[in-house]
Amino acid sequence: MFMVPVYVHNPHLDALKDDILYHFSLGTGSHNLPAMFGDVKFVCVGGSPWRMKSFTEFIAAELAMEDPKSGYPNICAGTDRYAMYKVGPVLSVSHGMGIPSIAIMLHELIKLLHHAHCTDVTIIRIGTSGGIGLEPGTVVVTKQSVDATFLPKFEQVILGKTVVRSTDLDQSLAQELLQCSKGLNQFETVIGNTMCTLDFYEGQARLDGAFCSYTEAEKQEYLLKAKEAGVCNIEMESSVFAAMCKLSGLQAAVVCVTLLDRLKGDQLSSSHEVLNNYQLRPQILVGSYIKKQLKAKAGNR
Amino acid sequence: MFMVPVYVHNPHLDALKDDILYHFSLGTGSHNLPAMFGDVKFVCVGGSPWRMKSFTEFIAAELAMEDPKSGYPNICAGTDRYAMYKVGPVLSVSHGMGIPSIAIMLHELIKLLHHAHCTDVTIIRIGTSGGIGLEPGTVVVTKQSVDATFLPKFEQVILGKTVVRSTDLDQSLAQELLQCSKGLNQFETVIGNTMCTLDFYEGQARLDGAFCSYTEAEKQEYLLKAKEAGVCNIEMESSVFAAMCKLSGLQAAVVCVTLLDRLKGDQLSSSHEVLNNYQLRPQILVGSYIKKQLKAKAGNR
Repeated sequence: MFMVPVYVHNPHLDALKDDILYHFSLGTGSHNLPAMFGDVKFVCVGGSPWRMKSFTEFIAAELAMEDPKSGYPNICAGTDRYAMYKVGPVLSVSHGMGIPSIAIMLHELIKLLHHAHCTDVTIIRIGTSGGIGLEPGTVVVTKQSVDATFLPKFEQVILGKTVVRSTDLDQSLAQELLQCSKGLNQFETVIGNTMCTLDFYEGQARLDGAFCSYTEAEKQEYLLKAKEAGVCNIEMESSVFAAMCKLSGLQAAVVCVTLLDRLKGDQLSSSHEVLNNYQLRPQILVGSYIKKQLKAKAGNR
Repeated sequence: MFMVPVYVHNPHLDALKDDILYHFSLGTGSHNLPAMFGDVKFVCVGGSPWRMKSFTEFIAAELAMEDPKSGYPNICAGTDRYAMYKVGPVLSVSHGMGIPSIAIMLHELIKLLHHAHCTDVTIIRIGTSGGIGLEPGTVVVTKQSVDATFLPKFEQVILGKTVVRSTDLDQSLAQELLQCSKGLNQFETVIGNTMCTLDFYEGQARLDGAFCSYTEAEKQEYLLKAKEAGVCNIEMESSVFAAMCKLSGLQAAVVCVTLLDRLKGDQLSSSHEVLNNYQLRPQILVGSYIKKQLKAKAGNR
């Protein structure tokens, strides 16, 4: 079977004697990246370092790969920018909040996977979001990531000029994840568009930021327009995630739970217990998907 | 003397019974914000949670306000999105990397200061940056924050439409900080423009990202154009910081050290010791400024 590598598109990289992945506190000169990461087949990324550690513990139990002695050390312990954990073929990395924060992480992650000669890598963002017209706790698998004008594109400024990139995600992976959720039958999962914004308050039409210059009616009108454009949820990282994964040949999906219905409110006023339960859902779904894939691969050997 | 409050511009806030500052894990219903924060006069913000804790320890020693028993607990311990520390009138908050991440923090910080009835607050971002034509380790106090086309503006998308905001910073505060540095005479400090980008690699004309579609000559040409436009350094938060602080009436400054000269390279290859020493410089400068201000106020009483 043909193995798909992780592509970088940068002729300058070959000239670097040592490639320092600064925000990971890793590098080709200081670390044996193929030995550390060569077996990675799944990368799961999410905003919060704590959530990515808890996902690692969860997936270790799912795959019966627990190592009670190790305690899953943070591979990026030399920095507090991102946290990274690994259990078997599954790498778990935090990315902070917003497009710039996840973009820095993805540049260094793609180089890491490339330097480590990884092949056939699937990458899934597991996150939280605001839903539009969905029961809170619904999981959305992203069909297309769209911008604040509901267009499926990501604008990247390079040398002061705007370059437009596609935000296509892997449709077969999205369907497989949906099937997986049906098998689980623990919570509602839908496939729909995800709006990616640069701001959480004014950028998502919230009425509870420090500044708000629009009325509640104007907010509702905007969110209903988004709904008409197929937007099921709103978050802050999917567009650049889709664009960069597509460029590097990574099979990518975005799986976010909705913490509230934005047509009914703005504040996250549910109890911590309820919100924590919701946040586990993308982990449970992706954990089940990974387990199924590894089982199928083992069967094919 | 007239006391300047911290302004919010949002008629909807009054209707909220309980304002939940979700990403701080604080709220008006659950916390007595005036009692906790009413005495805050200086807020220092920076990307890394670790650096903001170390700044708190530093400022406590500077102001002879050490409390060896307390160990400076993280006020936002209920979340891992941001970290917050307080010593006397100085609040220290981390903001992660990039415009969206600092914007979420600033929305909630401005509401926090407003709810706590704080007055006459000065806010300073202490950060790291890439320099243009400056000796690494030089501290830049920002005159104007400019975008990737060297214009002093911040574009915010609201209800799908682009709103342009001014990125003016307090010029007298910048001059006072420069004078302070002259008094210290420990490192070079300059006043200049700061370019704020949405990306660290392609957005800052680096040659070492996962993707790079331009030549070294094109990179140099772009950075030299930036230099001609008065840009001394490049970072990723100053524009929205300037815009939001101006809207809320906060006296604001941006003080960033340059970790390298981007005309000579892209990778942060200096030793951790050297980089850590550089990162202390904005802290030392701002610590000295705060000490001087508090001394002057005590003298005026």
